[in-house]
Amino acid sequence: MNRSLAWLDDVKFDANGLIPVIAQDHISHKILMVAWMNQESLQETVHSQRAVYWSRSRQRLWRKGEESGHIQHVHDIYLDCDGDVILLMIDQVGHIACHTGRESCFFRQLQHSTSDTPTWETVAPVLKDPEHIYR
Amino acid sequence: MNRSLAWLDDVKFDANGLIPVIAQDHISHKILMVAWMNQESLQETVHSQRAVYWSRSRQRLWRKGEESGHIQHVHDIYLDCDGDVILLMIDQVGHIACHTGRESCFFRQLQHSTSDTPTWETVAPVLKDPEHIYR
Repeated sequence: MNRSLAWLDDVKFDANGLIPVIAQDHISHKILMVAWMNQESLQETVHSQRAVYWSRSRQRLWRKGEESGHIQHVHDIYLDCDGDVILLMIDQVGHIACHTGRESCFFRQLQHSTSDTPTWETVAPVLKDPEHIYR
Repeated sequence: MNRSLAWLDDVKFDANGLIPVIAQDHISHKILMVAWMNQESLQETVHSQRAVYWSRSRQRLWRKGEESGHIQHVHDIYLDCDGDVILLMIDQVGHIACHTGRESCFFRQLQHSTSDTPTWETVAPVLKDPEHIYR
């Protein structure tokens, strides 16, 4: 075994070779997004100190910010008790993590009306028009 | 369609009928754990305002705290832009979310030694012996 890769033994990738990754702002502790990594993207993240995900829709490495400029600088990396979720503490360039132009992907909140029918309400503003992010 | 279940249409469960759920402390904003829900557990969570997960290992509903007493009171529920991750803002009874007796499941941090070989280091204490949690 390559000694320098021993840390990867504790990371449990799923049947598709992927692991979910939470990106959390290292100062505000706001949760910005969840994406997926394969082993290659995790290794590149560790070595480059920038978040690199695996795009399930495009089936290729996704260097966050490669099109938008919204790079994520990685401050710390945590692994959970089961080894099957990774947490990145990051500095989000541009303060926009979501492809909708919002700070966070978690902008829909479940709200209960008087009719007892919950609905998802958008509770965070678009900071930048996506058409101006992806040019 | 049952009108009262319309909010569930925006929730995208995976091929196994599950969705990953992040539990975050609603005051400290610390990420405590990630677990999974199926539709039934999500509905019970919404109606009971207590976190109910789907245990993949036991293949049954897991009412968090049912054995340990470490119930999670749900303050807010968020859905991400793709509809495939849920975020719970919770109040963790007992301040222990992890089965290891720690506050958070994310207690292993990747650290770089001078040898350029990263290692996972435990950076959070056990607050309560698991043998005394699960009696």
